[in-house]
Amino acid sequence: MSKFTLLIHCPDTSGIIASVTSFFYKHKGNIIYIDQYVDVENKIFFMRLECEFAHLIKIESLKNEFAEAIGKPYEMSWHIYTAGMKPNMALFVSRYDHCLYDILGRYRSGELDVNIPIIISNHNDLEYIAKSFDIPFYHIPVVKGEKDKAEKRQLELLKKENIDLIVLARYMQIISSRMIKAYPNRIINIHHSFLPAFAGAKPYHFAYKRGVKIIGATCHYVTKELDAGPIIEQDITRISHSHSVKDLILKGRDLEKIVLARGIKLHIDRKTLVYNNKTIVFT
Amino acid sequence: MSKFTLLIHCPDTSGIIASVTSFFYKHKGNIIYIDQYVDVENKIFFMRLECEFAHLIKIESLKNEFAEAIGKPYEMSWHIYTAGMKPNMALFVSRYDHCLYDILGRYRSGELDVNIPIIISNHNDLEYIAKSFDIPFYHIPVVKGEKDKAEKRQLELLKKENIDLIVLARYMQIISSRMIKAYPNRIINIHHSFLPAFAGAKPYHFAYKRGVKIIGATCHYVTKELDAGPIIEQDITRISHSHSVKDLILKGRDLEKIVLARGIKLHIDRKTLVYNNKTIVFT
Amino acid sequence: MSKFTLLIHCPDTSGIIASVTSFFYKHKGNIIYIDQYVDVENKIFFMRLECEFAHLIKIESLKNEFAEAIGKPYEMSWHIYTAGMKPNMALFVSRYDHCLYDILGRYRSGELDVNIPIIISNHNDLEYIAKSFDIPFYHIPVVKGEKDKAEKRQLELLKKENIDLIVLARYMQIISSRMIKAYPNRIINIHHSFLPAFAGAKPYHFAYKRGVKIIGATCHYVTKELDAGPIIEQDITRISHSHSVKDLILKGRDLEKIVLARGIKLHIDRKTLVYNNKTIVFT
Amino acid sequence: MSKFTLLIHCPDTSGIIASVTSFFYKHKGNIIYIDQYVDVENKIFFMRLECEFAHLIKIESLKNEFAEAIGKPYEMSWHIYTAGMKPNMALFVSRYDHCLYDILGRYRSGELDVNIPIIISNHNDLEYIAKSFDIPFYHIPVVKGEKDKAEKRQLELLKKENIDLIVLARYMQIISSRMIKAYPNRIINIHHSFLPAFAGAKPYHFAYKRGVKIIGATCHYVTKELDAGPIIEQDITRISHSHSVKDLILKGRDLEKIVLARGIKLHIDRKTLVYNNKTIVFT
Repeated sequence: MSKFTLLIHCPDTSGIIASVTSFFYKHKGNIIYIDQYVDVENKIFFMRLECEFAHLIKIESLKNEFAEAIGKPYEMSWHIYTAGMKPNMALFVSRYDHCLYDILGRYRSGELDVNIPIIISNHNDLEYIAKSFDIPFYHIPVVKGEKDKAEKRQLELLKKENIDLIVLARYMQIISSRMIKAYPNRIINIHHSFLPAFAGAKPYHFAYKRGVKIIGATCHYVTKELDAGPIIEQDITRISHSHSVKDLILKGRDLEKIVLARGIKLHIDRKTLVYNNKTIVFT
Repeated sequence: MSKFTLLIHCPDTSGIIASVTSFFYKHKGNIIYIDQYVDVENKIFFMRLECEFAHLIKIESLKNEFAEAIGKPYEMSWHIYTAGMKPNMALFVSRYDHCLYDILGRYRSGELDVNIPIIISNHNDLEYIAKSFDIPFYHIPVVKGEKDKAEKRQLELLKKENIDLIVLARYMQIISSRMIKAYPNRIINIHHSFLPAFAGAKPYHFAYKRGVKIIGATCHYVTKELDAGPIIEQDITRISHSHSVKDLILKGRDLEKIVLARGIKLHIDRKTLVYNNKTIVFT
Repeated sequence: MSKFTLLIHCPDTSGIIASVTSFFYKHKGNIIYIDQYVDVENKIFFMRLECEFAHLIKIESLKNEFAEAIGKPYEMSWHIYTAGMKPNMALFVSRYDHCLYDILGRYRSGELDVNIPIIISNHNDLEYIAKSFDIPFYHIPVVKGEKDKAEKRQLELLKKENIDLIVLARYMQIISSRMIKAYPNRIINIHHSFLPAFAGAKPYHFAYKRGVKIIGATCHYVTKELDAGPIIEQDITRISHSHSVKDLILKGRDLEKIVLARGIKLHIDRKTLVYNNKTIVFT
Repeated sequence: MSKFTLLIHCPDTSGIIASVTSFFYKHKGNIIYIDQYVDVENKIFFMRLECEFAHLIKIESLKNEFAEAIGKPYEMSWHIYTAGMKPNMALFVSRYDHCLYDILGRYRSGELDVNIPIIISNHNDLEYIAKSFDIPFYHIPVVKGEKDKAEKRQLELLKKENIDLIVLARYMQIISSRMIKAYPNRIINIHHSFLPAFAGAKPYHFAYKRGVKIIGATCHYVTKELDAGPIIEQDITRISHSHSVKDLILKGRDLEKIVLARGIKLHIDRKTLVYNNKTIVFT
């Protein structure tokens, strides 16, 4: 048996769903999931579809046929992900360990269908965790004036390991536009506030100062504009006047872990599509 | 322009989506919403679909064609609801006013696409509210030994007003199996606990006694077994040891209102399908 | 039996709790609630205390004694609210009816321990609701260039009715600094976003544009700086890419109603203390 | 400087707060936290108090004085916990690793003020995790007919390590009444449902079958009656008809981790008091 996930976006017109589903029906596929969304304002059609086949399929010839029969006529951007194509995910960390522990725990228990070939950090504080999980750890210090050199080293490693997805697990450095260009909508960050509130540094300090009654965390793709990329997932927790900044940081940790983990899983499971600086999240 | 919503369930097989979507494509319909679900265990396929037509359609002939071409071959249970077919909703209340106020407020502001021709109550405490919203109010006391008589009167009224949907807005009486048979999966109740916890009477008292840290409310279709019908919607709120039973009742009110309102709206918007004592909720 | 609530703030020092509780013990009061908070940064002590007496007390002489024995030595700001002192609350509305219905429903059912002598609006759309609840409604149009005149009329009415608390139940006008000075920390507003995100106009439109996955509502005291006053309560609800601005507005209504109602209740129950543009909320 | 936490419960009468706070004031203590609760039904007074001293105090003589002056006259059950008295916590696990990883991650990062001298398991699957955190792991198989023998071995180990608190981190065995008697209100369990719903085995399967729209987790003290002990903390997450049992298990993991971690922290921080099969949780 074989199975794949198809992600599509294209100009909206009638007949797309009928054409796509009929195509796979003719190829004896069984559609086990379909969800679609139309951005009415911009007239864009989005679809996610999972298809199963009782027999082994020749994926390359199917893709070619799909491109000809459906992709071109509808001017589609589309991608077929076959089951078993595990993405290679690199983790970037600094000194906070909670997101790292959380991701590696999920990875070890089989919750994340992914490979983690490398962990990169500008500090070596967390090397011992990488070791205890048997994952290669690269300490690449980011020194003032030599940031460019550090980034080249990072890019070499990412290329060498065929990295598909970069996760900034509380990596306390700004990502350059070169890196962003190399991994468009493939760098996931966790920000410790309910964006757009408290973008930038020290959100818990500003949340404390403003006297908010909820704090949040936001998982988003990294774009050039700081903390302004497409949001994948957000969640919040209640606080009160009696919580100090330290309390907020502690409470926020659990949020950060869970929101980041959800965002990673959505991406890995091919449930996200980015358009117009927003993330369509299929559920 | 015309528009309708189609709800389907049938034995699962491949090709259903392609067949259905192609059928409407051939009739020049534009599918603006599609969602589907397969109960893998019982091999049942469920689908909700919204379809728009630029022109006026002959709905009866379309239905006949659909029955022949799709409905029969796939052994479907299906229903087409055209936009504008507003359901007639009867409200049953006793003495609590919060759900009644809430529903009527939403009704008045246009949030609920429904007619409310009658309010029925076993007490006359809330008649003044019905009056202030200009809705006919029927006081049908439910006296011991004469329950059957009261119910006949209710059924007559419901029939006369062509009622499609009954909402028990904190109606403190048990509904007979005759009434349930007459309105299968069309009687919506709000229960003041997160079912199946605290089924039956006085859930807040039992929640207090058990020392739970959350209380809930459950909106469900009424079936013969008390508080055991298909769940449409649930939500919860946090409590603490310091809350008395009276506090729980007060906090629970807001839950009851919102959970009931959400359940009603899902039903009215044709987003629910009941199967095997569960509710499929399309979103 | 008599009962009162005491709210205190003063410079932090040791012995305050012992002194205050001993004072009431000597006067044969039974403390049924005590909560305290210290702002460590600014060294300010805050306390809320409820005290019951088996006998009738002479409240004025007790206040005098308290001022001498405790208030002055500790340089306290303090206030004693006796049970039964119902605040007079004015409602300001424009055209949205959901918060008004919600507040009046709660008021009618006895949930809010308050008088509502007047409803003031810059439009007359909601007059019929005021009427159905038998509450005097004043239509005071706010015309360009004559805002000052309208405000004078409002202030006269508020004074005449001995208003203690103003609630802006989706009142779509900016409150002048004169009004704010007259009712410091006694004007409660509901803002339809999780402040500080999306302060200002059209928050749902900006939330849609930013692609957030949660929307919120914020209840706060009105201060000179728009949407920047001390926050009393906030809550949120989840949304997805598939929700239009209209959907957000609809979903937001329930949030607005509940968050505003909670904020009003906290104020009325003397559970809030404002300091340094933050609200201490005793629970 | 020294600091301690005092937990009290006693028959309710007036003057307790004044007496206790005056006692510590006379001993030059500064009360930095006070919270109290009265169970009106049973007339029991509960209090939690934190007190700081600028100087070193002789804790034993202070305790003796307190017992004489306050404890005896008011018939109090009371306990003073000095800061720095870290509880010794034993972890019991079976084969699920998510709660274990989570607790050890928090332990390592300093979030839990506790010692973890031993991990006990009826399987050896998770030994490698214990090793990677350098914590002694004891594999004590629980074989049919030899359960008593296994328990004796457990009790020896617990005694030897001066264990104060046992945490069942998804330990899949029923705890005997002998063990419960030895550690009354000191065995914390995580149950994977919102109790009292779905008590007993396989709650996710029953939740799926019932078609609930929320699942939960409950952290409670273990008592003789299975899953009926005093609840410390609960939380929930939303699910839909489309989630399989496997999905529920996966989603439930995050709940279990967080709810158990919160429960442990509340216990360790001396914020819980058990009375009448309920947990008073001071915040």
